[in-house]
Amino acid sequence: MKKILLFVALFPALTTFCQTDSIFIRKIYDKALENGQAYENLRSLCKGVGNRISGSPEAEMAVKWGEKLMNSYHFDKVYLQEVMVPHWVRGTKEAAWITNEKGATEKLHILALGGSVGTNGFMEGEIIEVKTLEELKALGKEKVKGKIVFFNEPFDQKLLETFQAYGSCYYQRGDGANEASKLEAKACVIRSLASSTDNFPHTGVLHYEDTVKKIPAAAMSTMDADLLSSWLKTGKVVLKIEMNCETLPDVKSYNVIGEMNGKDEKVITWGGHLDSWDVGEGAHDDGAGIVQSIESLKILKELGYQPNHKLRCVLFMNEENGNKGGEGYAKIAIENKENHICAQESDAGGFLPLGFSVWGSEEQLKLVNQYSTLLYNFNLYKFKSGHSGVDIGPLKKVYPDMLQLGLSVNSQPYFNYHHSAADVFEAVNKRELELGAAAMASMIYLMDKSLK
Amino acid sequence: MKKILLFVALFPALTTFCQTDSIFIRKIYDKALENGQAYENLRSLCKGVGNRISGSPEAEMAVKWGEKLMNSYHFDKVYLQEVMVPHWVRGTKEAAWITNEKGATEKLHILALGGSVGTNGFMEGEIIEVKTLEELKALGKEKVKGKIVFFNEPFDQKLLETFQAYGSCYYQRGDGANEASKLEAKACVIRSLASSTDNFPHTGVLHYEDTVKKIPAAAMSTMDADLLSSWLKTGKVVLKIEMNCETLPDVKSYNVIGEMNGKDEKVITWGGHLDSWDVGEGAHDDGAGIVQSIESLKILKELGYQPNHKLRCVLFMNEENGNKGGEGYAKIAIENKENHICAQESDAGGFLPLGFSVWGSEEQLKLVNQYSTLLYNFNLYKFKSGHSGVDIGPLKKVYPDMLQLGLSVNSQPYFNYHHSAADVFEAVNKRELELGAAAMASMIYLMDKSLK
Repeated sequence: MKKILLFVALFPALTTFCQTDSIFIRKIYDKALENGQAYENLRSLCKGVGNRISGSPEAEMAVKWGEKLMNSYHFDKVYLQEVMVPHWVRGTKEAAWITNEKGATEKLHILALGGSVGTNGFMEGEIIEVKTLEELKALGKEKVKGKIVFFNEPFDQKLLETFQAYGSCYYQRGDGANEASKLEAKACVIRSLASSTDNFPHTGVLHYEDTVKKIPAAAMSTMDADLLSSWLKTGKVVLKIEMNCETLPDVKSYNVIGEMNGKDEKVITWGGHLDSWDVGEGAHDDGAGIVQSIESLKILKELGYQPNHKLRCVLFMNEENGNKGGEGYAKIAIENKENHICAQESDAGGFLPLGFSVWGSEEQLKLVNQYSTLLYNFNLYKFKSGHSGVDIGPLKKVYPDMLQLGLSVNSQPYFNYHHSAADVFEAVNKRELELGAAAMASMIYLMDKSLK
Repeated sequence: MKKILLFVALFPALTTFCQTDSIFIRKIYDKALENGQAYENLRSLCKGVGNRISGSPEAEMAVKWGEKLMNSYHFDKVYLQEVMVPHWVRGTKEAAWITNEKGATEKLHILALGGSVGTNGFMEGEIIEVKTLEELKALGKEKVKGKIVFFNEPFDQKLLETFQAYGSCYYQRGDGANEASKLEAKACVIRSLASSTDNFPHTGVLHYEDTVKKIPAAAMSTMDADLLSSWLKTGKVVLKIEMNCETLPDVKSYNVIGEMNGKDEKVITWGGHLDSWDVGEGAHDDGAGIVQSIESLKILKELGYQPNHKLRCVLFMNEENGNKGGEGYAKIAIENKENHICAQESDAGGFLPLGFSVWGSEEQLKLVNQYSTLLYNFNLYKFKSGHSGVDIGPLKKVYPDMLQLGLSVNSQPYFNYHHSAADVFEAVNKRELELGAAAMASMIYLMDKSLK
């Protein structure tokens, strides 16, 4: 991978942009805001299908939903791309209680972490609280063996972007159980990776190394984590937990693809991910990205745009716990000797769009930057070098010279909803969702025009 | 008033700003985000007092709430400033039904407009729908007399800023009843001034000319307006309405003021409005502005800032239906021969702050603009010439040379909540509220340092 160049569009280039571009982008926004279908499509996905973890019957329904919807828009080509995906199921039992030395007991709000093994009936153990992996390691096997490790590092609220806070706390969910197991802990519970203090537990994937014994892991709500931590200050606390989640054999699933033919066969890809976690409705994560991606192609088609390159909207499967859709897509692209020149993703929630994160060469950054003045008029001002999206990540590995873009949105509310029962349709603002679709379509248009 | 200069900080001045400023502003943000009280104070105002229309017992409670809170922060001076305010009460009866020629009946979701007279028992009349005042006038007295006029111009969703859409539709609420009365309509109903399509009616003030007969006026939800309009396409529709709202004699109330002494007696004022409409909890409008304003002074005090000028936080009374607080404040300022050099207001909701609207001379605009690079690092990028706030408006009339600033925030969700039962504490995001407080405090600091 190429080195990521730091660039901030504080001083937009003074290059003139074509008046035609401005008029066309205004038309894109008019379509999205006045006649947009993104919001009603999101309602249909959230309320008609619901949450849709990879391998589930709901994920299968979502594939059919996407295919049917794109067919109804009469895109040039709509098809499915087969991928094998993991199949983890939460099971029917999921509960935990804490009891202190005085005999007080509280039931926690928990969710098993995605990929966790079950407890095989009730499991009970003394809780030991740590804030970091270093703290855990310093305790050593002697103090950790047979205990239940409780990771409790809260988000750093001082950070302006919540994704930074999430990134710093991610290890608790991603690596906590694995590292605790190395010291022979019997289970692991974590403080939910959330900005807010409330009673929603937030799930998400964990990773076990092949050589490490898999121990059960769950997230509790931030309020429960505060309560538990306060109890631990006064003495021993015992956790009783039961979960019968398990991993079943892999399942056949699909990326869902819609295309508009261009003057050549070079490909501009964009999308979001169709799967979600198995709680809430996957509205922001990533129903929003899905309906915005479809809307982008719909708008360009309705405006009669004749693209230079092949425009391809992809509803990726399995971003949450495997990225098999993204990996499969990249593999097939290479096998088919396709020429991918640009990819874009929306997977940060259906919030107010602010700009784009850009991953490319210095020349490509300049190319994007020349449109910053134009896009400023549509309230897009943030053009920063950075991560563009998990689903399109594998594509960058096989096409290192391509330009990748990520729709950058207001990050403040995201981790109140992310991977929790709070991520429902009602949490999405119609106009913000539509503005995001318009921003994506505008960038597709500009890149299709600019990239050779 | 001076002509408003158009200016957009697209190309921030390259002037160097002091490293000290950047460090101090970072401290302001740390305080607001990590130890902020704004969110809990908003909870207390919304849940402990509730909505608080001018003249109500709740408004009186809000005055005491503000005084007590500011006293608890030990500001240099906390005091009340007496103002007489209107006292309109909704009354106990408020209902409306529509019936079409086939005898179908629906109950509407309505709210009397603020200041409306009651119906004096049931009132019934045929509905006549119009989209604009011109359309109404073109109908003439012959067609309007004895009817109930229904204004039904929806927000123009194509406009990027919802305040523009609100501004274009405002006449329906502000002038609709008055103009309909001139043509001898018996009542007036309007489509709620809202971005969203839902069942919340949105109230707000109306204006009657002294010479015009006051007729009852109410807003219905946008969904009801769509339903009614569809019925009217198939034939006559009769509206039956009962409201016993009324205007009582003016009541004594107060602006609540907290101050920090400066090296001189020049005054920098900022605030929001303490009153709200009498539905919901006045969380975004303008509980948010109130707690952000208090938080700004609290943060500057806690950081040990020694201001050059007198810093004055004002919780204005009666913005919603009279602006007696803003007018009274300006009058007293002049009477006391105060020297006001700058004022700032937060009254656009507790949403993600994006920048500031600036109302001042070319020189003052340049002064603000020189900090745009610094503030960009805190995600504030929007510096546009424009309206700064209703409460501080009268101050600009008497101090035409002063600089006025309005906190500019994400406007997309505002008119889903504005003046409706949906404007509750739960609709406010903690971090967005806190970022707004930090933005205000930063601008107060910068202007206190820069303005002579």
